[in-house]
Amino acid sequence: MALPLRRRLPVLPLLLLAAGGLRAAERSSSSAMEELATEKEAEESHRQDSVSLLTFILLLTLTILTIWLFKHRRVRFLHETGLAMIYGLIVGVILRYGTPSTSGRDKPISCSQEDRLFTTLLVNVSGKFFEYTLKGEISPGKIHNVEQNDMLRKVTFDPEVFFNILLPPIIFHAGYSLKKRHFFRNLGSILAYAFLGTAVSCFIIGNLMYGVVKLMKLVGQLSDKFYYTDCLLFGAIISATDPVTVLAIFNELHADVDLYALLFGESVLNDAVAIVLSSSIVAYQPTGENTHAFDAAAFFKSVGVFLGIFSGSFMMGAVTGVVTALVTKFTKLHCFPLLETALFFLMSWSTFLLAEACGFTGVVAVLFCGITQAHYTYNNLSVESRSRTKQLFEVLHFLAENFIFSYMGLALFTFQKHIFSPVFIIGAFIAIFLGRAAHIYPLSFLLNLGRRHKISWNFQHMMMFSGLRGAMAFALAIRDTATYSHQMMFSTTLLIVFFTVWIVGGGTTPMLSWLNIRMAQILKEGTGHSRKVLGSSGYVVVFEH
Amino acid sequence: MALPLRRRLPVLPLLLLAAGGLRAAERSSSSAMEELATEKEAEESHRQDSVSLLTFILLLTLTILTIWLFKHRRVRFLHETGLAMIYGLIVGVILRYGTPSTSGRDKPISCSQEDRLFTTLLVNVSGKFFEYTLKGEISPGKIHNVEQNDMLRKVTFDPEVFFNILLPPIIFHAGYSLKKRHFFRNLGSILAYAFLGTAVSCFIIGNLMYGVVKLMKLVGQLSDKFYYTDCLLFGAIISATDPVTVLAIFNELHADVDLYALLFGESVLNDAVAIVLSSSIVAYQPTGENTHAFDAAAFFKSVGVFLGIFSGSFMMGAVTGVVTALVTKFTKLHCFPLLETALFFLMSWSTFLLAEACGFTGVVAVLFCGITQAHYTYNNLSVESRSRTKQLFEVLHFLAENFIFSYMGLALFTFQKHIFSPVFIIGAFIAIFLGRAAHIYPLSFLLNLGRRHKISWNFQHMMMFSGLRGAMAFALAIRDTATYSHQMMFSTTLLIVFFTVWIVGGGTTPMLSWLNIRMAQILKEGTGHSRKVLGSSGYVVVFEH
Repeated sequence: MALPLRRRLPVLPLLLLAAGGLRAAERSSSSAMEELATEKEAEESHRQDSVSLLTFILLLTLTILTIWLFKHRRVRFLHETGLAMIYGLIVGVILRYGTPSTSGRDKPISCSQEDRLFTTLLVNVSGKFFEYTLKGEISPGKIHNVEQNDMLRKVTFDPEVFFNILLPPIIFHAGYSLKKRHFFRNLGSILAYAFLGTAVSCFIIGNLMYGVVKLMKLVGQLSDKFYYTDCLLFGAIISATDPVTVLAIFNELHADVDLYALLFGESVLNDAVAIVLSSSIVAYQPTGENTHAFDAAAFFKSVGVFLGIFSGSFMMGAVTGVVTALVTKFTKLHCFPLLETALFFLMSWSTFLLAEACGFTGVVAVLFCGITQAHYTYNNLSVESRSRTKQLFEVLHFLAENFIFSYMGLALFTFQKHIFSPVFIIGAFIAIFLGRAAHIYPLSFLLNLGRRHKISWNFQHMMMFSGLRGAMAFALAIRDTATYSHQMMFSTTLLIVFFTVWIVGGGTTPMLSWLNIRMAQILKEGTGHSRKVLGSSGYVVVFEH
Repeated sequence: MALPLRRRLPVLPLLLLAAGGLRAAERSSSSAMEELATEKEAEESHRQDSVSLLTFILLLTLTILTIWLFKHRRVRFLHETGLAMIYGLIVGVILRYGTPSTSGRDKPISCSQEDRLFTTLLVNVSGKFFEYTLKGEISPGKIHNVEQNDMLRKVTFDPEVFFNILLPPIIFHAGYSLKKRHFFRNLGSILAYAFLGTAVSCFIIGNLMYGVVKLMKLVGQLSDKFYYTDCLLFGAIISATDPVTVLAIFNELHADVDLYALLFGESVLNDAVAIVLSSSIVAYQPTGENTHAFDAAAFFKSVGVFLGIFSGSFMMGAVTGVVTALVTKFTKLHCFPLLETALFFLMSWSTFLLAEACGFTGVVAVLFCGITQAHYTYNNLSVESRSRTKQLFEVLHFLAENFIFSYMGLALFTFQKHIFSPVFIIGAFIAIFLGRAAHIYPLSFLLNLGRRHKISWNFQHMMMFSGLRGAMAFALAIRDTATYSHQMMFSTTLLIVFFTVWIVGGGTTPMLSWLNIRMAQILKEGTGHSRKVLGSSGYVVVFEH
């Protein structure tokens, strides 16, 4: 009877379409005193919800103010996302150790107990059936005060919030800001890195981790099942790179535009590949319990699912983008920027819903919609709408991203079911290092055979170095934390994100200098076909386009 | 045990803080086939949610395109909100009569049945207590297929969505765009209209409606209880004016700025008064069942609640506004418009949460926060942030407003428990007419005693005419539709909104000409201290500030 976790709460539409219709009739005419008491209880709960959301907003406000201070003083070793994580971490520690413990709720419910329960009860009251859903366990002492202070639980989000609310604006913004000559000039390489690279990385990491898991089994460090598909899923999750900190520094220092395009393009597209790849791996379910054996039928089914979801989502995104472009082209909507912006926003959102309604992946559709909008619609918009739409999604992206990162900081302490296994963690760090090396260097070599502008060794090292993990890896990992293996993967992913954002992100500026990569004040000359670039080491490079 | 309706779902924070923490452990390891089946069912439900949200988005898109056409052809008799209602109406009719009926769900549950039910069940499984909540009734035939197609139910929102998601941006925008010299020049009159006027209107409408209700009782047209407090609540609900259509036309035709300021200022502030007034009336609960007798203690308690909530919300809004102003003044945040805009957005949102967390009214706090932000913070912002914040809230306001109006159109057919009583409806129309007359004319007379620029008869007639009802009246009315009296009030409010938006809104341009109110192309001369205004009737007025 139980719904699997990831579909338990259909969040986004739920947000708006709370099934409040029937509830309107449910108000009982019980005595005034009793009603007053429950009213108070419900108000208390509403108040607590407000307080916990307020906590996040204050966290973000603090992040913004500190970041301003850092930017003001030109401190570059810590990006806003890293800072958001630190603040989240601090609040997480306070919530974890500073608030009175509520032992009854904190205890993880073991599977064996849950098996005896049903998530839905049907109660027959004089011929009418009423449906009850399981809300959770309550310790005996709390029966008369169910809504007791429990900040730890309150600050825990439904994982689907990330996929349905926070990721779409981030991903759309990434697509919408892709309209760069340099992106399309490097399109072939970017596609190669994103598709082939992610697949290679996923399989290498998956296999290495399977080795680690086997080792752990030998040593007796593994207390529950960990299948080969779980390892592959981990490979897919952790293959979504997010070099947001590196790119911010690139932007600030005006580092090489081609390298920027390669890194940014790869990171944007490999998010989509990683999502669809992980869905396909989840869909890989050979019949029976023997899930780590190879099953050709299931494998081809997975490949089919991958291709189907990917192309379907791509189509959805592209089609709504093109429709918006046509509408803005053939109406004189640009006389009314407000209408135009509203239309743009609605059409972009409808891509997400359309894809979800058709069973494709909304986030992927939104990415390709963003790219199409940038490439076609953007040129039909009025000047005001151009800046309006850019700014609107920039703000949404900024807020959503920092929200996720501060939540990550928080989750390290407030998530109840962490499983930190040193062997697994060390293995994962080695695996992602090898996985990235195994796709950057060979692919670059192959690509260089065909490229006019070769990807230099320094660029390759920089790309190797910039394999940070961020919001997407986190969102994929938190999506399903129901089993032992998934919990271990989630905890490990969290640590990898922390490490890469802080250490690798902080080391970007020294790394750029060390690799002698152009960090320049670009001095435009003429119409921009030839530019003088003032290198960090003082030399001047003139290069032609 | 039942929670009263308006607090059943603490929506806003719920949106983000779905209490997903515990659910992570709930995944049962039932057989793969069973899981697959429920997975499919849940996916189906998610898909339906997407589809119904998509319906609203397409409605809005259609509205935008038609409005563009209307603006393009300079059609002024129908405002976008009126159009949104019409489209909503059409979709409502289709959903109501075009889809297969689901009789089991549609039947209203009578109170007597509900009394025997509990909204929460506690189940003891071998010493552990699990909490189940009532989801709703299901007809016997549907037990094996709970999530059947039921678009009517799907498109019904939880009423708190209006208060916690859609109204705040609308109200904030109203406050934020109040920064007009003309507003502060007419502040005294605006406050008088908003406070005294709304109170007078509320009491007159309440008493008239009580007469109508007594009449209905005599004739035998009333089938359930209708207390005096219900009538007063109706007075408060329907006293929130929303001349959005009139103001749009004023703006377009550059009609008299003082009249604009009076109308706009009144409508913005009386929303706040109406909300707090209705909360106070709900708080007026004399002990015992004799709720329509006068109880001095309860009355003074209500007055105290009114003053407490109003001043508390005012303070919250003003304080966060001032804090934002100080932060933007004493940091050099304006070098980074993105950070500045994000901070502005977060601070404004935190007002809402802060007020809700303290037990005040978030919407009212947001209004005063908007006014403070416009008056102080706005001047500290960078040029880019000024337009960014303006545009951001303009888009949000536009979307939210048209969403509410199209939902209203939909609700006329999809709401399941309409009670249309012709006597009550006719009585209500007469009452709101008399209620508005009874506050506009006497108050204007009194104000004119003290004003330098008198409010002319034509202006008074125009103000009388512009008493449209809109989003706020709807949101207040839908908040509680649990009892017979509230359902009748809701249906009547809906009709009043429809009538005033279509008929009164459509008649604005003729009315302006008829009353000889300046509709002018303003010809600015010099530094703007003296302006030449070309009246609609051809005369030129020069007036000084």
